[in-house]
Amino acid sequence: MRKVAVIGVGCTKFGEIWEKSLRDLAVEAGVKAIEDAGISGEEIDALFGGNMSAGRFVEQEHVGALIADYSGLASLHIPAVRVEAADASGGVALHNAVLAVASGFYDVVVAAGVEKVTDVDAERAEELLASSVDREWEAIYGGTLPALFAQIARAHMRAYGTTEEQLANVAVKNHRNAVHNEIAQYRREISVDAVLKSPYVAEPLKVLDCSTPADGAAALVLCDAEKARSYTDSPIYILASSLASDSLSLHDRRDITTMDATVEAARKAFKAARIEPSQVKVAEVHDIYTISEIVSIEDLGFFKKGEGGKATEEGETEIGGKVAVNPSGGLKACGHPPGATGIRQAVEIVLQLRGEAGKRQVPNAEIGISHNIGGTGGTAVVHIFSPSPS
Amino acid sequence: MRKVAVIGVGCTKFGEIWEKSLRDLAVEAGVKAIEDAGISGEEIDALFGGNMSAGRFVEQEHVGALIADYSGLASLHIPAVRVEAADASGGVALHNAVLAVASGFYDVVVAAGVEKVTDVDAERAEELLASSVDREWEAIYGGTLPALFAQIARAHMRAYGTTEEQLANVAVKNHRNAVHNEIAQYRREISVDAVLKSPYVAEPLKVLDCSTPADGAAALVLCDAEKARSYTDSPIYILASSLASDSLSLHDRRDITTMDATVEAARKAFKAARIEPSQVKVAEVHDIYTISEIVSIEDLGFFKKGEGGKATEEGETEIGGKVAVNPSGGLKACGHPPGATGIRQAVEIVLQLRGEAGKRQVPNAEIGISHNIGGTGGTAVVHIFSPSPS
Repeated sequence: MRKVAVIGVGCTKFGEIWEKSLRDLAVEAGVKAIEDAGISGEEIDALFGGNMSAGRFVEQEHVGALIADYSGLASLHIPAVRVEAADASGGVALHNAVLAVASGFYDVVVAAGVEKVTDVDAERAEELLASSVDREWEAIYGGTLPALFAQIARAHMRAYGTTEEQLANVAVKNHRNAVHNEIAQYRREISVDAVLKSPYVAEPLKVLDCSTPADGAAALVLCDAEKARSYTDSPIYILASSLASDSLSLHDRRDITTMDATVEAARKAFKAARIEPSQVKVAEVHDIYTISEIVSIEDLGFFKKGEGGKATEEGETEIGGKVAVNPSGGLKACGHPPGATGIRQAVEIVLQLRGEAGKRQVPNAEIGISHNIGGTGGTAVVHIFSPSPS
Repeated sequence: MRKVAVIGVGCTKFGEIWEKSLRDLAVEAGVKAIEDAGISGEEIDALFGGNMSAGRFVEQEHVGALIADYSGLASLHIPAVRVEAADASGGVALHNAVLAVASGFYDVVVAAGVEKVTDVDAERAEELLASSVDREWEAIYGGTLPALFAQIARAHMRAYGTTEEQLANVAVKNHRNAVHNEIAQYRREISVDAVLKSPYVAEPLKVLDCSTPADGAAALVLCDAEKARSYTDSPIYILASSLASDSLSLHDRRDITTMDATVEAARKAFKAARIEPSQVKVAEVHDIYTISEIVSIEDLGFFKKGEGGKATEEGETEIGGKVAVNPSGGLKACGHPPGATGIRQAVEIVLQLRGEAGKRQVPNAEIGISHNIGGTGGTAVVHIFSPSPS
């Protein structure tokens, strides 16, 4: 099996990007990644694009070929694939791109992700995003994402004493980090008090515990690790790429205070990379709600089950803490285009490991991880990155 | 790069399956394929599922994990991916499954495809299926699939003298073959006269030139070719898996009487398999409209450009002819669930090469091919199969 490296990254601004369409956003991110890699379009062997729901947001399926087309690659007839796994579409597209290079079928591959959510109104967007959970058992009974994550939060509070203040600290940290991230939707600090005073969306989750659906796109250029240095002086190697599934509906889970898909994907990834969670100094984690960051930093093995809230409150997940979690600002402050988030997370880790993250740079980061989930944890994807090939 | 073999196949009945849901259909096909392979669910390492538009037909995204879940594999947390490329979703899912096994990441993989179209009415279904073409340049101006394929037909008739009778012969042959296929939606013969007298949908295409959207699912079990004989006495080897893209919109094509994505995918596939088109004795070809079978049998190299209509009229594509095209009945008579068709085609080729196709068996078939396109040819996928490993 060939090893895989990242040789280029690109990302659009995230947010309400009224003046750009789905295809505009995808092409912008792709061009940035290709320019960053210093290659030309002719050198690309295949494209894997993550997208959750262009069929419903902009009435367009066949999104892989569409992006290849609008990237000017149609005349080259490059293989183009769209991958969907709800909010984990980007991470799963990256996994497929890794398989593609590892297999030897393709040498230079673009892994991209895009979503355009603002062509429908916010209420309709919330309804469309609920298609990530089990339609027949959850969504049609009003089980939207915030409602289901509120159940997870409630269960976690009851089992481990996690508090609303601890949840608020996730949002506060992520907003603070995003001040220095030019692609983030919300580049302003917020206070714990502001989070606690914001209105409830689904108790105990308040407005400022929630990420917002956003427009945006991100892209990576991958290649065979052995050839990476012929393209760039700063390749970042993918030490592990792993994917796991779970039941879509919460009621079929063993325990809703943990996401077994994350536990399983992380177990396989750490084993493949031959490292321990304690060696990770920078992590992009799926904080679609504040509770999901807390659950995830436990499930990834950074903190013991039940101690994620306390660790957050004590600053252990800040830049400079035990493990810097979401130095980008995370989904909470960057905004969350479901198809793009998993790739945007990987872009951030690559920038951090290259030492190019500017004022949000995590010191001494030698190993980084990205963690992307679909729905309430029906899919989890974990990637481990390093500037060293092994 | 590891070689890949098919060790199990399964298919539901295609058609208006009112009593079964998307998840029911997917599980039924998967269970049949697993039983055919003689393995247990625990032996499956990953699932790649093709689906075009569950988000719009049944308001459910996150379809990969959903299928794993309802197949009873959620507790095993197997990696599950949904792949979308419009009508080519099944074929592209198969390509991704091949990459997955070839890479060495996964040993035993299910490649499946499913679509449930009858939960919306037929007019709405036609509108949803038009999301396979360029929404911004074609679909919103009324450029539905039949309208665009009618333009292709008109251009082919003008350039090469193809006639409406020749188009009708495609439908007549495919209906005749489907009489012996228990999964087909339409198991009755039709006459050339009946096709010619059926009402125009988009001139020159008539009702009986068109395949119909259908419910259905199909599945394959793949494994490392070297281990295939430990599972079955009749493995079928995948000699080539290739994918190509083109512009979504017809107006950006070099020539609309040919699909360059098919030409390119076929060129790469024949090169990888080291065979010539003349060695192929059985082919499942994307006959979403009768004209698309004629264009495709030319683009795949079975007949010279412009001679597909004449070859069809002369019986060269019948079982027993030069190359048996669509012995299953094709999309025309089996019905066309966009996510499932590419896998259903592969199932038919495997049955043919195993000699298990009953009354529709193609004699002396040693090499078979499946060809699946998305939209009007924005994506094309070609797979070449043989009972011999090389």
